[in-house]
Amino acid sequence: METIKIGLIGLGTVGSGVLQMVENNQDKISNITGRQLSVKTIVVRNVAKHRDDVDTSRINLTDNLDDIVNDPEIGIVVEVMGGIHPAKEIITQLLTAKKHVVTANKDLIASAGEELTSIAQQNHCDLMYEASVAGGIPILRTIVNSFSADQILEVKGIVNGTTNYILTQMQQKNWSYADALQKAQELGFAESDPTNDVDGIDAAYKMIILSQFSFGTHLKLNEMKVSGIRHMQLLDVETAASLGYTIKLLGIARRINDGVFAEVGPVLVPADHPLATINNENNAVMVTGQAVGETLFYGPGAGGLPTANSVLSDIVSVTKNIVLGTTGNSFNNYQNQADHVKADEVVYPYYLSLEMLDIPGQMLKLTQIMTKIGASFSQIVQTKNDNPTDNQTARVVIITHDMSKTQLAELKDALEQKDTINLLAAYKVLS
Amino acid sequence: METIKIGLIGLGTVGSGVLQMVENNQDKISNITGRQLSVKTIVVRNVAKHRDDVDTSRINLTDNLDDIVNDPEIGIVVEVMGGIHPAKEIITQLLTAKKHVVTANKDLIASAGEELTSIAQQNHCDLMYEASVAGGIPILRTIVNSFSADQILEVKGIVNGTTNYILTQMQQKNWSYADALQKAQELGFAESDPTNDVDGIDAAYKMIILSQFSFGTHLKLNEMKVSGIRHMQLLDVETAASLGYTIKLLGIARRINDGVFAEVGPVLVPADHPLATINNENNAVMVTGQAVGETLFYGPGAGGLPTANSVLSDIVSVTKNIVLGTTGNSFNNYQNQADHVKADEVVYPYYLSLEMLDIPGQMLKLTQIMTKIGASFSQIVQTKNDNPTDNQTARVVIITHDMSKTQLAELKDALEQKDTINLLAAYKVLS
Repeated sequence: METIKIGLIGLGTVGSGVLQMVENNQDKISNITGRQLSVKTIVVRNVAKHRDDVDTSRINLTDNLDDIVNDPEIGIVVEVMGGIHPAKEIITQLLTAKKHVVTANKDLIASAGEELTSIAQQNHCDLMYEASVAGGIPILRTIVNSFSADQILEVKGIVNGTTNYILTQMQQKNWSYADALQKAQELGFAESDPTNDVDGIDAAYKMIILSQFSFGTHLKLNEMKVSGIRHMQLLDVETAASLGYTIKLLGIARRINDGVFAEVGPVLVPADHPLATINNENNAVMVTGQAVGETLFYGPGAGGLPTANSVLSDIVSVTKNIVLGTTGNSFNNYQNQADHVKADEVVYPYYLSLEMLDIPGQMLKLTQIMTKIGASFSQIVQTKNDNPTDNQTARVVIITHDMSKTQLAELKDALEQKDTINLLAAYKVLS
Repeated sequence: METIKIGLIGLGTVGSGVLQMVENNQDKISNITGRQLSVKTIVVRNVAKHRDDVDTSRINLTDNLDDIVNDPEIGIVVEVMGGIHPAKEIITQLLTAKKHVVTANKDLIASAGEELTSIAQQNHCDLMYEASVAGGIPILRTIVNSFSADQILEVKGIVNGTTNYILTQMQQKNWSYADALQKAQELGFAESDPTNDVDGIDAAYKMIILSQFSFGTHLKLNEMKVSGIRHMQLLDVETAASLGYTIKLLGIARRINDGVFAEVGPVLVPADHPLATINNENNAVMVTGQAVGETLFYGPGAGGLPTANSVLSDIVSVTKNIVLGTTGNSFNNYQNQADHVKADEVVYPYYLSLEMLDIPGQMLKLTQIMTKIGASFSQIVQTKNDNPTDNQTARVVIITHDMSKTQLAELKDALEQKDTINLLAAYKVLS
């Protein structure tokens, strides 16, 4: 049986998982593809550090990329080093050398996916990246293959495991954000600099890729509203729970008229909604199609082996394409121009957390502002103040009826002009 | 742009959904495949009955199958008439005439899938059947494409919407089985003869197909233990709920050593398990892989448009294969011999519902039997009797620790020899 040789760039948790899966699942892979797979060369920054991880009598462990680029035997290269540079330059070099490339690099695909796809096609090579979104959940290939004839109306979900772990701990153990983050760092669910995760940037990259697959559009990070959970108050998590909601960091991308709206931010999810039950580091993506209705895909959002499984599904797809002589087609070939969505077209109920001076007439002021902008509320709760020594101010939580983003902006403006009312948080509510 | 002409056999809810989706989603389909699709001919039993459903100025509505078989313009045929005969003969005729075939026919694929696949390959034709399992959930293609390099350990789920609707109503509204079935029939979720659904046969067909894809094996219906919900007592649903479980009709297929065990029957699912939250006519399939861990796919299990969406995903796949010149490959090409699994290798905790004469010494007898077969229990509850006028007997519910099927059979034998203890129900418990 013919063997396809693989090059691997990077040997962290995902790279090690890929190596392990290729070696352990030979029988099934060759049963399906009619080819043997074997990892021939691994490029790492520090060879000495990894010498014990690899059987170097069979595998070439090197710090020289040319050992892969210039090796005509290597057909498929897996890039799991991460980061935009020099990964972009390396992948470009590999594609130009006619190597098929599989990557788990969401930052790179979200920012330069179009450019790299076009280089791949010029060189009749495959470029696949299932592992770039939601680790072990095979969502990209599912959208390509299984919703191909449906009109996707919305794709939303929990696509960052770190923030979901933190929010789950806050909710279940009444921990503060700082305590939950520290625990996540101790367990390896959060990095020492957690910025990309907790500020929603990682989730935004994934929503950009999901939007490309679902709507054919190319959104840019700087065009999206992205907020994270860095300022999440335990009091808001508790108040939301008492009202029947769980706060989740959701990515939402929706078709609105002829446009696509995409955003990342904390959202109140009803406790009996499937997304409210996704806990800890798990991910879930909900796809709503005009024909199919609501579907949900749930699984591990990260981790060496789950992510490696997605990488392997790409490797097997490339191998099948090599066998069939059909390489060089775009992973996602749905292309569509989307209009800009106007702020008054994006409509949700909102959860508003307000601090107001505890003197008569404040609620009247608030009601007057709401009435003026044409908004109304369905629930209003006066809760305890976060600071027990503060008896000057009261805390009020409101769940509004549907409000447009234009109305929300007007509300924020109006409140900023009042010294006695302070808007602490405004989160969307899923209905 | 080139047009691929489609023939449609059957115009029930799924057939109408397929017609509607092909017409409404032209732009996206041609954007992805580079081909236009159009339904040219529809074969129905009674033309007069369907004349108003179809624009007959553009589509040929006929009762003559030859209008499709002998039309060289028609490249893809969709069979949604259902049933094993004459569907099997028709599909054979179509494949022999070099037509690619898409079907939603689970009974046929579960019983004759291997034979039809081989006819398709001999004729270099595609035969696809995503819609045959779990309606709108794209589970077959996901297993083929996304778990290709992983070792699947277990596939289990709620794959019959009718029985899940009935069990949900019993649980949520305290209805009897008969009342819930009647409601399901009124709403069109159950057929007037519900045998195939309520006796678990429909679910078993789907588990046979899921096992083929997950384990490469070819199980037969008569080799599987299949039980349904026809004798489900409301009292057991209520008792299970009070113990923290929801009763679901589950299909379970597990790799055990070198064999595959598959079964359909009522199972007690812990209330916080993802499968316990799948309600009404919805379906969900949970796939556990050695590398990926636990993943779950949830969506509508039936219905015209969701099922049509799966049919369309097949049509688009066939179209891509036509464009690439890669038709004639098996939908699932994982083949594997599995050993027979022995009864003492299949181990679960059980829920046992017992009726015993209300005289001293009965519990001692039961305990002696359990001890003799080497089984033990974790919970024991004496509950009210179903019949308020009966004060001769007591009802006792037991949740056992792990027991093998051999032990369960021994227990049943031993209890049958006692006149004073009667085993009413024995259901697996998911841990």
